[in-house]
Amino acid sequence: MSTVRLWTDQEAEADPAVKAVFDDIRATRRSDVVNTFWRGLASDPATLKRTWDGLKAVMAEPGALDPLTCELIYMAVSVANGCSYCIHSHTAAARAKGMTEAQYGHFLAVVGMANQTNALVTAMQIPVDEAFLVSDGRPTGR
Amino acid sequence: MSTVRLWTDQEAEADPAVKAVFDDIRATRRSDVVNTFWRGLASDPATLKRTWDGLKAVMAEPGALDPLTCELIYMAVSVANGCSYCIHSHTAAARAKGMTEAQYGHFLAVVGMANQTNALVTAMQIPVDEAFLVSDGRPTGR
Amino acid sequence: MSTVRLWTDQEAEADPAVKAVFDDIRATRRSDVVNTFWRGLASDPATLKRTWDGLKAVMAEPGALDPLTCELIYMAVSVANGCSYCIHSHTAAARAKGMTEAQYGHFLAVVGMANQTNALVTAMQIPVDEAFLVSDGRPTGR
Amino acid sequence: MSTVRLWTDQEAEADPAVKAVFDDIRATRRSDVVNTFWRGLASDPATLKRTWDGLKAVMAEPGALDPLTCELIYMAVSVANGCSYCIHSHTAAARAKGMTEAQYGHFLAVVGMANQTNALVTAMQIPVDEAFLVSDGRPTGR
Amino acid sequence: MSTVRLWTDQEAEADPAVKAVFDDIRATRRSDVVNTFWRGLASDPATLKRTWDGLKAVMAEPGALDPLTCELIYMAVSVANGCSYCIHSHTAAARAKGMTEAQYGHFLAVVGMANQTNALVTAMQIPVDEAFLVSDGRPTGR
Amino acid sequence: MSTVRLWTDQEAEADPAVKAVFDDIRATRRSDVVNTFWRGLASDPATLKRTWDGLKAVMAEPGALDPLTCELIYMAVSVANGCSYCIHSHTAAARAKGMTEAQYGHFLAVVGMANQTNALVTAMQIPVDEAFLVSDGRPTGR
Repeated sequence: MSTVRLWTDQEAEADPAVKAVFDDIRATRRSDVVNTFWRGLASDPATLKRTWDGLKAVMAEPGALDPLTCELIYMAVSVANGCSYCIHSHTAAARAKGMTEAQYGHFLAVVGMANQTNALVTAMQIPVDEAFLVSDGRPTGR
Repeated sequence: MSTVRLWTDQEAEADPAVKAVFDDIRATRRSDVVNTFWRGLASDPATLKRTWDGLKAVMAEPGALDPLTCELIYMAVSVANGCSYCIHSHTAAARAKGMTEAQYGHFLAVVGMANQTNALVTAMQIPVDEAFLVSDGRPTGR
Repeated sequence: MSTVRLWTDQEAEADPAVKAVFDDIRATRRSDVVNTFWRGLASDPATLKRTWDGLKAVMAEPGALDPLTCELIYMAVSVANGCSYCIHSHTAAARAKGMTEAQYGHFLAVVGMANQTNALVTAMQIPVDEAFLVSDGRPTGR
Repeated sequence: MSTVRLWTDQEAEADPAVKAVFDDIRATRRSDVVNTFWRGLASDPATLKRTWDGLKAVMAEPGALDPLTCELIYMAVSVANGCSYCIHSHTAAARAKGMTEAQYGHFLAVVGMANQTNALVTAMQIPVDEAFLVSDGRPTGR
Repeated sequence: MSTVRLWTDQEAEADPAVKAVFDDIRATRRSDVVNTFWRGLASDPATLKRTWDGLKAVMAEPGALDPLTCELIYMAVSVANGCSYCIHSHTAAARAKGMTEAQYGHFLAVVGMANQTNALVTAMQIPVDEAFLVSDGRPTGR
Repeated sequence: MSTVRLWTDQEAEADPAVKAVFDDIRATRRSDVVNTFWRGLASDPATLKRTWDGLKAVMAEPGALDPLTCELIYMAVSVANGCSYCIHSHTAAARAKGMTEAQYGHFLAVVGMANQTNALVTAMQIPVDEAFLVSDGRPTGR
């Protein structure tokens, strides 16, 4: 059970600020479904709108990375943060965007290795190789 | 400074088990460089070999995901775990594999959004939508 | 289901060390309820007492921060750690101490932003500005 | 050293989108300083603008929580995420907004207790008390 | 509900690669049970085998640390990562390997203190004492 | 650089509450060294005393787990939390308490595996096996 009230469609219809976001979610995704996350955020319309606008810009509009790659990154973060809801929703989204089971298997293998080597590096407090630090060859400043 | 001794090339040459892994790292990557992580792991040759074999299978051999996508997933995990060494090394690897600055910018935007919505979902303890749970339509069991 | 036995009131009554802590919890909170966390810790009376004494000193006695602010800090930590029990219990405690829904909405917005910018900073490995480092203007030493 | 180029003022002056954000940071904070985080984000003006607009709305504009409380929440998240830059910058910001050393001491005590009890609860997998779950007494739905 | 199909014994019998790992799990543990984790990994036989081989080498074969100590370390990591499944399975394994309730109580106390002092150290950004850094008295290099 | 002033011995001598803790640290450890963590906490004598008393009870007094096992657990938590100071100090303490390099190698292998399997389990959202849940065979209640 959530710590917040989850807005019904009737409630959302009655609040113009919430309705506008719910309508845009439906239009952008071409689906009638507004998933529960947005129903929880609805109590704070400003945060609802800012979060949706950000997510839409990053995940739903054309960008330098393709939509499936974005979902895989989202999944990786959600796993590291242990966010069950986010793992379920973005794994479902990745499948909807064409992720094959072979790709999912490879994703799991990468995530497993990354967490393993992250822990080994951190345990040994390995200093960063000079070679990794030269990112642009220009002096920094302000 | 690390909590372990970092093996020099001379030391690695003198230990057949370590030398075999260092040689394979160089051959696989077509580079003379063996980065510091492996020099720290060398004190435990069994873990050195198992970790390298795993990383090679997942990151250096052909798989269902392309090499750059794998690096982006690795970076996302490393950021969530706050592993400075891993962030530097895999960001460098992603650039070596062709990541453009526009792709890196998109990566940052996705990682930022994912951590933001992960936190919001967790704070509100949002229950998972039924729609996300039907992953394969088959009963599970054993 | 927990990994430990949850002590009933009858069991607690029969163990003087546990009873003393449960009695103090009830007296301090002016409530009959001893929540489940303490029932799990009861198997180790020394840890039970030390944990309760610490929590009482920090959260239940007058301090430099007011009780609601302390709960908001507790909630923020619990969200970042993904502790479902702690999120529920401290969100309930914050509401009991007067947190309005508008304050909760603002809390969510801050927590979301903090996790987003934490991730961006970590991904980019931004060096700390000199200006942030001068905390007291005195040389340190021992 | 960062993984990104840190924009100088001269570079920012030459890019209208970046200049607009840097100008707004200076105007909002009534300070000439644009801290390094924004100089790292500048390579992606869209993310720079969205992040600054979000931070400004949440942290710099009047809200239901006072500015110091917001900084304490930000600090708590940053500690849990281990973001060194964010800890330094928001601890400095909290002091600039009036945090006393006694308040900082209390903050540390709360953060320490929260991380301790989070771990204990998680280790024992304590189920959430029914009493904490009744957040609004209304049926949820969509 | 999981994001993957959990393989039944019948399905595992029909796939030689999966069957070989399941057989080895049963033989190594002298038990008929193959726990659910392996049934989820079975969709990717290469990751299944690599993960099991690694776990077996580290946790089931004689090593420098005794089996119970290994389980306690595993539990500590799982608590810090908030992995409910792993906490349950490794706490059960520790009990099967002889962990007493007094030892479990001590484990909880150590885990609680470690998370508390980790947070305090991180919040205060304490620099590492020189005395802790001299790990082997030899110059490092390559 | 820390966010707090690090107390010198002269300053500690002049404050009875701080002096009492520093004296007890030296007596308990039979060493003249008071490491930097305590010098940072000294600004809040109540938190200093509570934290030291807790650490002493858990780590310095005889308990159900031997001192080296306690340090290994502490190290595992510190790695998962990414606390550099704590990793260095507790790895040094483990060595001082007799940890061999072979034991350290095994520790690293366990920590690596645990973080890997934690991530895989979390990614797949594996449900806990019934067999792991029967911790004491007694009904719980209050």
